[in-house]
Amino acid sequence: MKKSDVGITVSKSEDIAQWYEQVCIKGEVADFGAVKGTIVIRPRGFYIWQAIQDYFNKQIEEIGVDNCYFPLFIPESYFVREAEHAEGFAPELAWVGTKNDDIGEKAIIRPTSETIIAENFKKWLRNYRQLPIKVNQWCNVVRWEVKQTKLFLRGREFLWQEGHCIYETKEECVADVQKILDAYVTLCKDVLAIPLLAGKKSKAETFAGADFTLAIEALMPDGKALQMGTSHYLGQGFMKAFDVQFMGRDEQQHYPHYNSWGVSTRMLGAVIMSHSDDKGLVLPPKLVKQKVVIVPVKPTTDALKYCDELKEELSEFGAFVDDREGYSLGWKLSEWELKGTPFYVIVGPKEMEQGMVTVTCRDQTDKTPLPKGDLKAFVAQEMDEMHHRLYAARQKQLDESIVDVSSFDELLTVVKEGKLARAPFFDDADNEQALETESQGICTRIITELDAEQKCIFSGKLTKTQAIFGRSY
Amino acid sequence: MKKSDVGITVSKSEDIAQWYEQVCIKGEVADFGAVKGTIVIRPRGFYIWQAIQDYFNKQIEEIGVDNCYFPLFIPESYFVREAEHAEGFAPELAWVGTKNDDIGEKAIIRPTSETIIAENFKKWLRNYRQLPIKVNQWCNVVRWEVKQTKLFLRGREFLWQEGHCIYETKEECVADVQKILDAYVTLCKDVLAIPLLAGKKSKAETFAGADFTLAIEALMPDGKALQMGTSHYLGQGFMKAFDVQFMGRDEQQHYPHYNSWGVSTRMLGAVIMSHSDDKGLVLPPKLVKQKVVIVPVKPTTDALKYCDELKEELSEFGAFVDDREGYSLGWKLSEWELKGTPFYVIVGPKEMEQGMVTVTCRDQTDKTPLPKGDLKAFVAQEMDEMHHRLYAARQKQLDESIVDVSSFDELLTVVKEGKLARAPFFDDADNEQALETESQGICTRIITELDAEQKCIFSGKLTKTQAIFGRSY
Repeated sequence: MKKSDVGITVSKSEDIAQWYEQVCIKGEVADFGAVKGTIVIRPRGFYIWQAIQDYFNKQIEEIGVDNCYFPLFIPESYFVREAEHAEGFAPELAWVGTKNDDIGEKAIIRPTSETIIAENFKKWLRNYRQLPIKVNQWCNVVRWEVKQTKLFLRGREFLWQEGHCIYETKEECVADVQKILDAYVTLCKDVLAIPLLAGKKSKAETFAGADFTLAIEALMPDGKALQMGTSHYLGQGFMKAFDVQFMGRDEQQHYPHYNSWGVSTRMLGAVIMSHSDDKGLVLPPKLVKQKVVIVPVKPTTDALKYCDELKEELSEFGAFVDDREGYSLGWKLSEWELKGTPFYVIVGPKEMEQGMVTVTCRDQTDKTPLPKGDLKAFVAQEMDEMHHRLYAARQKQLDESIVDVSSFDELLTVVKEGKLARAPFFDDADNEQALETESQGICTRIITELDAEQKCIFSGKLTKTQAIFGRSY
Repeated sequence: MKKSDVGITVSKSEDIAQWYEQVCIKGEVADFGAVKGTIVIRPRGFYIWQAIQDYFNKQIEEIGVDNCYFPLFIPESYFVREAEHAEGFAPELAWVGTKNDDIGEKAIIRPTSETIIAENFKKWLRNYRQLPIKVNQWCNVVRWEVKQTKLFLRGREFLWQEGHCIYETKEECVADVQKILDAYVTLCKDVLAIPLLAGKKSKAETFAGADFTLAIEALMPDGKALQMGTSHYLGQGFMKAFDVQFMGRDEQQHYPHYNSWGVSTRMLGAVIMSHSDDKGLVLPPKLVKQKVVIVPVKPTTDALKYCDELKEELSEFGAFVDDREGYSLGWKLSEWELKGTPFYVIVGPKEMEQGMVTVTCRDQTDKTPLPKGDLKAFVAQEMDEMHHRLYAARQKQLDESIVDVSSFDELLTVVKEGKLARAPFFDDADNEQALETESQGICTRIITELDAEQKCIFSGKLTKTQAIFGRSY
């Protein structure tokens, strides 16, 4: 094999879509599934998802959420009860076909579970003492996308968590909508090293069936925004549609207030695209199981003994020795760079003589000579340092990308340059649709309140909201 | 509500099927899904599944297995490549239907993933240095059962883990088939408190496409066996069918040896049916999140303060106070018995005066008076003791249930009494089919080797194998 067959053959700046696909596949994170729009998540990729799960499970435990599991199949009739929800999901629904057709109506393969969970809340809920009920599930969902699918970013089946909670009062419900958004921001910072825009979505971008939607948005290196997660206040619409009521403190029947929220394996796409480079995968070290590769320059008996001792000492970092014969040092280093190993340690005759090693961090080029006894402490410290460096680089891009604009033309120019434009905007679905059509795909990412009324940059109408505009994945 | 509306209305000995369903539903472990054959796993149930996942993930980590995820949808053509496998699964296959039919061939909803994983092994595998490859996924699978479905025990969608590993040699492969079986036995003992029969399945009961199948079987209280997990040596059949080859040490192409293995949410059914009683759910304490309920006889301010201090002290056991007004002490205790809370602590005026509590373990009737300062140590110790008591009771039934028989009539009698019969058996699919037909449903559970040839209890043929026979779920 020639190096070009194995390594990344296009640069990130030249063709980010091709580059990204190669990093995912050659970095052994993912593969295309056999059925169009499906994905295989390989161990290097699934390790990231497990880290997200472990961290987020602790976060929701503190909010009092319990994990559970609802069925993959939902009766079709459930999808017509909440009108906006039905309209929003209708084009993407898939259903199950079988030889023995004994279930009467079509069984939809879940695209999201509000309807079937609302039906269960109805079965469970009797009185206010049972509230709040807070549940979450980690599962697969199916949306039969017609747009071109992209590994992790857009697929017909993906993994996610979906939380569903009901409350006695609107205040408690809305408070948790925000708490979950905050938890997502912390998760992205601590686990993925990704800074975010976090806030309210415009009316046009609100979830089908929600009163309002909060979202987290990451800025990708090409200047496009990626919606990474949402937290919806659903009000009482689903509760009325599914007749979920409880006996209140006043001995009257009431509808609870409902929220739902989710993040998906899209996060894996975000973390890969954010940090990786032209040599391949770059990840925060805690997202890689085997964090340290030790490569002997020549695999002599002495060198292998030297390496094995290091491996033992660094076992908590999943250290391993690349002792393959017939591969050059350069080849080996290129392979581990491609696969995103955070630290590589070289052991040559000179190092052995002096009791040293030479270590390089994946996100840097420095070859640091170290006494072998110092390696463990170095790795332990650089675990965090590297995480912070990756985060800071992304934060810098985000800070430099938000540009205040005062005309629609300026907005077009800024977004064309791969940045995000901020401007007063009259938040209305028709207005946003018109802007999106005229700009060929620019839309709002986050909406915030203005102190005083200003003119909408597109419609000219007076408004108290402003929006951050961009292109999106 | 009258007590009879809430509590279990049939006894375990009288109608185990009805009793079991009531324990699952009224104990808030599970509910029927809206689509026939599906299930809702409520937080009390999912907590058990998470305990299984946490424990088993550590076990397979030691065997070198990595978690990953393969698609829900598998091209129909994959299912015809391995002939026995195709025949075995054909009747139960379900597929996806969509409005936009751009995928060419039918996409099957996975009933098991050997085919799609074999196809990926083909993509990944080049040479012997990459072997073994050991992967596992936790996911949902769909089998369109025509038999009557039962909560956890038989459903059209269930959750499971499926491990898939390939090796350079048969020896390594078969060694891991046994290692996994041993891990399952330990899991059932340590987590579920269930003793097992573990061993080889007969030819008739071998997995479709396997050379041999090992299984774990639990004896349910009604004398029926429940297959809880399987570990298959698949030989090279799938590898040949999917053309998975590697360059060996001898620079020739070889087919790897393949094993697969799985356990499912059926385990939740087993643990519930094994330990629960006529008052409701009984579970090993580690499978319950909130292990201690503290009930004040009268919820006075002083009593609530007393209870809250206890709750704080026992927070690591998820202790909680039932301070609801308008419910009698008896009602409250019945509710927590129904829901399987392992320890209930009563705080009355007499206890408070003396600095005492009265505690009862869910599997016993003794009301133990204790100084309040001793409660934490008592619960910590009884956590294990209760687990061992539950296990020992099941072990006793299992030990007393296996009866050596020397004629087919005797076999029928023993199984009719709710026991397992052991006898020499000529292990052949036709022979087993004939026995099953004539006995109206008795089949082999486990096969073992005999030291010397004996006559098959059914066919009269000489054989070196013996079988344990029973009815099964």
